[in-house]
Parts: sequence; structure tokens; C-alpha cells
Amino acid sequence: METGSNGSVTHRGNAKGDRSRQEITRIAIDCFAKYGFQGTSVDRIARMAGVTKGAIYYHFRDKEDLLIATVADRISAFETVVQHACEDLAPDRALARIAEINIEQARSNDQARFVITLMVEAIDTNAGVSAQLRDMMRRFRGFIRDMITEGQRLGVFVPEADAQAVASTYTSTILGAQIQFYQDPERFRFDEAITAWLSPLLSSLVVEPPRADASRN
Amino acid sequence: METGSNGSVTHRGNAKGDRSRQEITRIAIDCFAKYGFQGTSVDRIARMAGVTKGAIYYHFRDKEDLLIATVADRISAFETVVQHACEDLAPDRALARIAEINIEQARSNDQARFVITLMVEAIDTNAGVSAQLRDMMRRFRGFIRDMITEGQRLGVFVPEADAQAVASTYTSTILGAQIQFYQDPERFRFDEAITAWLSPLLSSLVVEPPRADASRN
Repeated sequence: METGSNGSVTHRGNAKGDRSRQEITRIAIDCFAKYGFQGTSVDRIARMAGVTKGAIYYHFRDKEDLLIATVADRISAFETVVQHACEDLAPDRALARIAEINIEQARSNDQARFVITLMVEAIDTNAGVSAQLRDMMRRFRGFIRDMITEGQRLGVFVPEADAQAVASTYTSTILGAQIQFYQDPERFRFDEAITAWLSPLLSSLVVEPPRADASRN
Repeated sequence: METGSNGSVTHRGNAKGDRSRQEITRIAIDCFAKYGFQGTSVDRIARMAGVTKGAIYYHFRDKEDLLIATVADRISAFETVVQHACEDLAPDRALARIAEINIEQARSNDQARFVITLMVEAIDTNAGVSAQLRDMMRRFRGFIRDMITEGQRLGVFVPEADAQAVASTYTSTILGAQIQFYQDPERFRFDEAITAWLSPLLSSLVVEPPRADASRN
């Protein structure tokens, strides 16, 4: 079992029936991912974790409190991965890399799918979780917007691009491609969809290298 | 109350308590859109329609059967609107028009939102509805792919474009933008996101008009 990067995990020993808050959170993700929020009872999570319901309620007020902790854990992990991956990259390479990370995460585990499908489900059914995931998307768009603004400052991206609008198309395409991949993994061509989108987007953003004599015409 | 375009509506009179299958379907949409599938009982639909539960079961086997009819009705209406709108348009204008229609529908009523959120929710919870909506997305991608292929045949679009991949990015961006708009109507700049995406996409697709002397270089 991994420990959280912030080191704040409350370990209460390793014996069966005495799991940490972090461990329960991670087991709950799999339960929610498999059965959905409605289909997951605290009873079911307790059985999967091998603890009593009381052990769950020791750490969490109710099922929604557990869901919110679960989602916060996943969001934080995603944001950490994205930030680390972009640290030493030029803005155009970083935009391509973030798209790759989203493809990798969508293909490799159910947790990204859980967060994305929950995000949509929560819009009409759970105001608290919806606000949490709305804030995640705002941060994601803000992160991409700042990357484009930085690229403009560095002279890599054209100054006339609307950074906020481009960030909105960026998150739109990645989100819509993920959903179609989850819906139709056999037919939806995830990689090709991303490549066919990213290539014209970057062409429109990146400043073309000056041609010989171009400045004299 | 509108009648279906295929004329197959079974009218059983207009008196209260004796509504047609089509009428119940349309009332059910509002119920599902408001409370979700889980939160909508046949009882609730019957109360909203002002009929008995027996009247619902006269037309529909169960709640899922009613949901499937509801979704089929909305899909059919959407596809009819899109096809009519594109009939006399050049392929590049049609691609822009379909994006506009999606924005209009997302802004004007809850039914598009209902279908989109249900589509995501159903992936993990309802195989029948998920297959129905997966097929809708396959048809949508196929429709866009054929439009691009036709544009290539007419010499409007560049021949090297991968029509299927471009269709996949097209549906991805529209879907992802809709979801972010539903999630965050106050902050997400729907129109700007679509414009900032469509403009470079069309630039990469449309054949540039030949320049004077270009063929001689």
C-alpha cells in the first residue's frame, strides 16, 4: 500500500480490521469505480476493506465524506503527475505531454474513469462533489492557460492566441476523447483522435521560424 | 404536443389519464433530466403525466424500456435536426453549423444535457442504454467522417487528412465542451472554446486557394 506524498496518512497499525484512512480511501475508489456511488454502500466498502462499518465511520462522517476524500486523493495525484511531467519542458512539448498522460491514465486503470464518469454524474445529483470536480477543471484550464501565456511571453506561441479559449478547447478535446474511449474502447481511436487534434492546434499556436528575406517583403 | 416525424405515434385520446406512448416518453424525459434514472420511479413519472402506473405499463415493460424509448426519441430528433441543417451546405460550412447546433441545444434545454450525462453514467451502470448511446456516437462520428471524405472528393479538403481521426477529434471537442458547460455554466466559455478549436481545425482541412505563380515554383 502506497503512502500519500504529503505524509499525512494516519497509520493505526497493520492488523486486519485496523486500516488507515488512506487505505480505506484507496479501497473505496475501486468499489465506487466498479459499482458507482449509488451502488456502493458503506457496508460493501467495509467488507472489501475487511473492516467493520464502525472503522469506516471512525474516519468518515458518511459515504459522501468518503467519496469526497477519495476524489480529492485522485485529483491530487493527477495534478502532481502533470506538474512534475511539465517541469522541464518547453510549453509546446508540455501541451503534447499532458495529452499523453491523459491517454496513459485512461488506458492503465479504472480510477481516471471513475473520476471522469463521477464528474458528469455528479452534475445533477451531488452538488458537493460537483463543486469539487468543477474546481479541478477550473484549475486544469487555468494551468493550461498559464502555460500558453508563458509560451507567448517566451515568444514560442503567437501573441494573438486567446489563451483562456485555447485552454478551454484543450480540456474539451481531452475530456471528450476520454469519454468516448471509456464508452467504446474497441472502436474509438483514442491516440489518432488526439494526434489529429493536437497537430493543427500546435501549428496554429507555435510561431513559425522566420524565412530568409521574409522581413523584407 | 408534437407528433413524431415517423408518424408512428399511437394516439389513444386526449382525455387526462389516457396519454399516448409518445406523450409519456416526452414527460419522462423531463423527469429523468431532473432526478436522474435512479431518482425517477415509474410512480413519479405517472404522477407527472397525470396517469396511473398501469397506463405506463400498458406502453412500457419497465422503467428501462421507457428510458430506452426516451433516449431513442431524443437521438432521432437530434439526428434529424443535424441532417436537415447540413443538406445544402458545403462540407466546411456544415462542420461549423453542426458545432453551432450543439451549442444551441446545450443552451436551450435540459434534454441534450440529460442524454449526455446519461451517456456517461450508463457506461458503468446500464449496458443496454450504454450500447444505444455508443451506437449514436458511432453514427455521429461516421456522419462527420463521411462529410470530410465528401469534402476531399470535392477538392474542398486536403486529401492527406485522416477523415476518421478528424471525426473523432470533432466529436471529442464538442462532447467535452458540452460537459464543461453543464458543469460550470457561469465560467466555462462555451462559444470561445468552440471557435478557438474550429478555426485551426478548418485551416488544417481546407485546401488553400492556389496563389499566382505557385504552380511554377
